[in-house]
Amino acid sequence: MIALDAMGGDQAPHTTVQGAIQAARLGVPICLFGNEKKIIPLLFSYDKKWEKLPLSFVHCSDTIGMADEPVKAIKQKNSSLIMAMQSVADNTTSAFVSAGNSGSILVAATFIVKRIGGIKRPAIGSFLPTYSGSVFCLDLGANTDCKPEFIEQFALMGHLFVKMIKKIDKPRIGLLSNGHEPYKGSQLIKEVYKRLDQSNLNFVGNVEARDVFVGNADVLVHDGFSGNIMLKTMQATTKAVSFWLKKYSSWWQKLILCFSPLEALKKKVDYSRSGGALLLGVNKPVIIAHGCSNATAIKNALLYTHRLVQQKTIENFAKQLQENVHHHFFPFSAISKKVKDLLHLRK
Amino acid sequence: MIALDAMGGDQAPHTTVQGAIQAARLGVPICLFGNEKKIIPLLFSYDKKWEKLPLSFVHCSDTIGMADEPVKAIKQKNSSLIMAMQSVADNTTSAFVSAGNSGSILVAATFIVKRIGGIKRPAIGSFLPTYSGSVFCLDLGANTDCKPEFIEQFALMGHLFVKMIKKIDKPRIGLLSNGHEPYKGSQLIKEVYKRLDQSNLNFVGNVEARDVFVGNADVLVHDGFSGNIMLKTMQATTKAVSFWLKKYSSWWQKLILCFSPLEALKKKVDYSRSGGALLLGVNKPVIIAHGCSNATAIKNALLYTHRLVQQKTIENFAKQLQENVHHHFFPFSAISKKVKDLLHLRK
Repeated sequence: MIALDAMGGDQAPHTTVQGAIQAARLGVPICLFGNEKKIIPLLFSYDKKWEKLPLSFVHCSDTIGMADEPVKAIKQKNSSLIMAMQSVADNTTSAFVSAGNSGSILVAATFIVKRIGGIKRPAIGSFLPTYSGSVFCLDLGANTDCKPEFIEQFALMGHLFVKMIKKIDKPRIGLLSNGHEPYKGSQLIKEVYKRLDQSNLNFVGNVEARDVFVGNADVLVHDGFSGNIMLKTMQATTKAVSFWLKKYSSWWQKLILCFSPLEALKKKVDYSRSGGALLLGVNKPVIIAHGCSNATAIKNALLYTHRLVQQKTIENFAKQLQENVHHHFFPFSAISKKVKDLLHLRK
Repeated sequence: MIALDAMGGDQAPHTTVQGAIQAARLGVPICLFGNEKKIIPLLFSYDKKWEKLPLSFVHCSDTIGMADEPVKAIKQKNSSLIMAMQSVADNTTSAFVSAGNSGSILVAATFIVKRIGGIKRPAIGSFLPTYSGSVFCLDLGANTDCKPEFIEQFALMGHLFVKMIKKIDKPRIGLLSNGHEPYKGSQLIKEVYKRLDQSNLNFVGNVEARDVFVGNADVLVHDGFSGNIMLKTMQATTKAVSFWLKKYSSWWQKLILCFSPLEALKKKVDYSRSGGALLLGVNKPVIIAHGCSNATAIKNALLYTHRLVQQKTIENFAKQLQENVHHHFFPFSAISKKVKDLLHLRK
């Protein structure tokens, strides 16, 4: 059963209840966490026979607002977000979904579900489209300030996740930077570059934002601030292009555009619509849908989560991560490389 | 006369020579800096009567490559970039244009043309389109690592520049962040927020990347790394949308799209095509065109620079900046605000 924070999201609980009903009709068992005075009437308004669906309900008296400061917010023990997260930690439910305040979800997941042993920071990851397939990007906003070792771990998490999902033996790891040359980047990026270059991951170097759709990498790592800028610029540009395309078109071009795949395109770069983003590095499946998710987005997030639960994706991923986080990352290849460098210097 | 680094750019000197001829035909006086063995034959190939145009020529034996490390590169005293920059510093020419390595241009400008007194770091600025007009964004890539005081000065430069160009009395200053709430952002952004909030600039708070086209600000400030990610994501997304739009269209939609304003749109978010970006905070007009500029882009950059020179834009801007950089920025309003806060605490 999936725990849905029914009060989280810009248009919640309308969109969450409607999305939950749509997913439940497809056989996804869901437990709604929210204020009964709001949720029950909505359930009846969207489906009079909702009680026949695999839907259950837990009353929560509090709600964490979208603008609430995360650390303060998670003190609201009776909020839908905290109670839903707690139910996952207690194994009452098997996964958590919310379109609420992502900062609060992150803090709640870290404190309640807890990080996988050895992981310094969880990261938000999602597949973004490329010309030939997709690239798994992380961190998309969980950690605004990163130390080099955090991004290094994001690379390991991306490596293991993509290896598992896409059955690629050695996923190519790229580092988001302001130029492809090794000397480009902020101090942080330069330090991460050095570390990844010495790891045994298949590190392909810096990737510029202008090449993000080219598909030179299977995993793209970055700090949460840059990831947020990149993702939201993609969404903003797709919207703007659609606006300007209509604005600059003649009446007959506009007519054609009504039938054009512009809408399909918007979905392509909007992770919320294609299911939601994963919080990687915590012990349970935690899925973050976009704040402005509509009912369809919530339904998609629930279906995506259902698949993850059934395929035990997070469970398997957590196992592999635990095995690899301490031993696998700086292996003999890196040490031998260092030794070679030293020998070379002595020549 | 404008000094053009004829060897700078991915497709230089072909594009630079062709662009220079196009601009010279419109009456823009240009001095080409480059290798005579390459430049002279090209000049004749593009226009046999080029000697009748307002074009002059200075031979430079070296070239700074696009991948050269900036600090090493500027030691090449006989390179086209350095010699062109030197001619501006000596007042032999009145402005500098290059599509070369932007890192090297920045370092050369700082060492040769020099910063305006009191300015800690020059910044690359350019107008980007919004739904209702444009927003002046800086820094678009000059400073990958920024201290809060750098971005604070970018805000002052943006304020003065937009005030002068757009005749807006109090341009609205926005700060690029990962959320509009004041508590959002990296440590750097939070510190800049505090400083701008206490300044006498018309600071409108954080602006999310997803709202960058909305037009809530006249000036948008950010560090050069984030600016680069934002700008290049815009360019990549516009290109990708165009690609997917064609890919997902039926044959008749594709036919229509050939006549659609997609190309016009690409120009909208590509500063190179609309003239180039300005390096603000140095004593002379320094214009950076995109590395992949074609001949038209070079022509546009030269025309843009010509206007800036004729209208004495940089001269006037430098004067105003010098007057304001020390005195204007932390005025009585900020001090009185602090005093008020202190009094409030004592109550």
